[in-house]
Amino acid sequence: MIAAATPTADALVDLAIVLAAAKLGDELFKRLGQPSLVGEIFAGLLIGPSLLGLVAPTEVLELFAELGVVFILFWVGLETRLSEMREVGRVAGVVGLAGVALPFACGMAFGLAIGESTATAVFIGAALAATSAGITSAVFDDLGLLGSRAARTVLGAAVVDDVLALILVAVATGIAAEGGFDPLVLVVSAGAAVAFIAFFALGGTALLSRRPGLLHEPRFSESPLLPAVILCLVLAALAAEIGLAAIIGAFLAGMIVAETRDQHPIEREVEPLYAFFPPFFFVFIGLEIDLDALADGGALLLLGALTVIAIVSKLVSAYPAALPLGRKDASLVATGMVPRGEVGIIVAGIGATAAVIDDELFAAVVAMSVVTTLLVPPVLRRLAADDAEAEPGGRAS
Amino acid sequence: MIAAATPTADALVDLAIVLAAAKLGDELFKRLGQPSLVGEIFAGLLIGPSLLGLVAPTEVLELFAELGVVFILFWVGLETRLSEMREVGRVAGVVGLAGVALPFACGMAFGLAIGESTATAVFIGAALAATSAGITSAVFDDLGLLGSRAARTVLGAAVVDDVLALILVAVATGIAAEGGFDPLVLVVSAGAAVAFIAFFALGGTALLSRRPGLLHEPRFSESPLLPAVILCLVLAALAAEIGLAAIIGAFLAGMIVAETRDQHPIEREVEPLYAFFPPFFFVFIGLEIDLDALADGGALLLLGALTVIAIVSKLVSAYPAALPLGRKDASLVATGMVPRGEVGIIVAGIGATAAVIDDELFAAVVAMSVVTTLLVPPVLRRLAADDAEAEPGGRAS
Repeated sequence: MIAAATPTADALVDLAIVLAAAKLGDELFKRLGQPSLVGEIFAGLLIGPSLLGLVAPTEVLELFAELGVVFILFWVGLETRLSEMREVGRVAGVVGLAGVALPFACGMAFGLAIGESTATAVFIGAALAATSAGITSAVFDDLGLLGSRAARTVLGAAVVDDVLALILVAVATGIAAEGGFDPLVLVVSAGAAVAFIAFFALGGTALLSRRPGLLHEPRFSESPLLPAVILCLVLAALAAEIGLAAIIGAFLAGMIVAETRDQHPIEREVEPLYAFFPPFFFVFIGLEIDLDALADGGALLLLGALTVIAIVSKLVSAYPAALPLGRKDASLVATGMVPRGEVGIIVAGIGATAAVIDDELFAAVVAMSVVTTLLVPPVLRRLAADDAEAEPGGRAS
Repeated sequence: MIAAATPTADALVDLAIVLAAAKLGDELFKRLGQPSLVGEIFAGLLIGPSLLGLVAPTEVLELFAELGVVFILFWVGLETRLSEMREVGRVAGVVGLAGVALPFACGMAFGLAIGESTATAVFIGAALAATSAGITSAVFDDLGLLGSRAARTVLGAAVVDDVLALILVAVATGIAAEGGFDPLVLVVSAGAAVAFIAFFALGGTALLSRRPGLLHEPRFSESPLLPAVILCLVLAALAAEIGLAAIIGAFLAGMIVAETRDQHPIEREVEPLYAFFPPFFFVFIGLEIDLDALADGGALLLLGALTVIAIVSKLVSAYPAALPLGRKDASLVATGMVPRGEVGIIVAGIGATAAVIDDELFAAVVAMSVVTTLLVPPVLRRLAADDAEAEPGGRAS
């Protein structure tokens, strides 16, 4: 070696391994007729600490994973118009509310039933509550259904879910802390979340639909790509800093940019970023699976129980709530609400930091998130197969 | 706040601030008729620890800066054919060798003259030796001259420079360490560097010119973008791990990909990545400027002396070496060799870690790199103004 390898060189190696592994997994699963994102999650499991140990879930990889889901939701926002969200808004809101309430109640009851403390039980409930907007969107995109009414309903419900789950986490953190929680803080934060979303969803789209050339005005760029990406990062960072999920900011930014008339050239330009970052998100989920902690009967039983509760409680709550869309769409919506993914993992991580979620429970929640994610694509594909709209699409650019 | 801000959320905020600041600086400088990258460096100085203190040069930002220069060199490689490099190869080699030898000798002599130790003097020489391939390419690209013979010569010479400078660093590190350095290790590493470059430059381009459809074969992707980006990251990581600069791997990867027949669609797809990452590189250079350490007469004198030596020694060595290209091109080449940028900063950083470069000297070397970078674009623009080929181009996509 001419010079010693630096931390930057090591991080570069991690990025190269993760991206190459993701695409090998994707390739293999595509050839087997399976969905890409499942191949990418398995690639993460394979190269992660549980098996080959090539790569560990470092802070840098976590950031790239976050950028991955940020660009997924930005892309989804680009494909979404506020008017379309309004159209499904009422149903999505009911699906989201029902789809948080029942899984939360069931998860909490289960926690208490197996003898956990109230704080731990609240965390289990919160981890079961939120549908993963990122995974759900990627699955619908893979199936070429991102623009469908069912997909938009799931997406709207997942955003409602995310907000509610993060509020539940605040409550749970308060209960876990010694002093309990302050209801006033809760009301203020929930108000801030709603105000943030309303302000950017309504104000931002109104501004850009009135001045669609705005993103073209800067001279630093011939195209609106960088102004749009900056808006995405700024709203994502802002959302993360006020304690909302970064992806909500990214989704709003995409929806605002979609209001400009040049939606199509922008999509073509965002596509390479949408191809580059999301694999880091799916590999990272695989990296976080801890097979060792799951390697005994008790843990597997816990995982099985959590997974059954996760699936049944979403289906039972979301299907009736989505029935106004018709039976076919209601079953697509209910199935689409099942994948948990990153929000469940984040909630469990906060619980682990607060020392109310132990290693086994954490591993089981992560594995439950992955299992619910893996089960859904084949079912959705079958449900959608009759649908004439379905055509292959997705990130593969 | 609903939940506490995580390290990931903070990193997201840093990225948003850096990208937004870079593009505001770019915008301002474009409106003033100045080059973008200078505006981005000043944006980094403004938001960095020396002035506003909004952002510090963290490891995450260093990685994004590295990815920035990696994508600059990947882009430059895409625009370069091996045959064109061969055409300027001999002259570029001589320019590179002469352009390392004289600045190194002058820097070392200066170090000894001001009473520094031999080890410190060797580091000063090595920090003055290497032209920045990243900055030089960005400047030529800004002027629409990236494809010109002069630009290719500077690029080839800068690659030669980089390799030689990193070997000098190995020597310097050996001298700084107690045991001196082992000539055998040096020969082996230099051999490995040359073998790496020759293997990928010749073998990689031969493979892809024979099988131009290779990057289209994976099913995970409809376009060759991700296979190309993976090749870029893998070669960059490999180059960094064997102690070469990551950018040399990225440049080789670009040149290999350029051999495929579908060069043009790939460039259009790489463009968004080339728009996204490089601003982090230029802002990071600005972040590293330490105005406090330069705030006394002695330090400013040191900076002035280093800058004069840096400029004169490159001009005096590169101009005669480039004369076979004619006087006009020789003056473009000699001027193009002046910017130091990242390699000088990296060398000084290694010296600081080895405790042979103190804070004042480190600050002066960084500032010298920045000053040589800032002075060159206006001069190159004037020199190139007569040139009918010149048309605006660059990263602004």
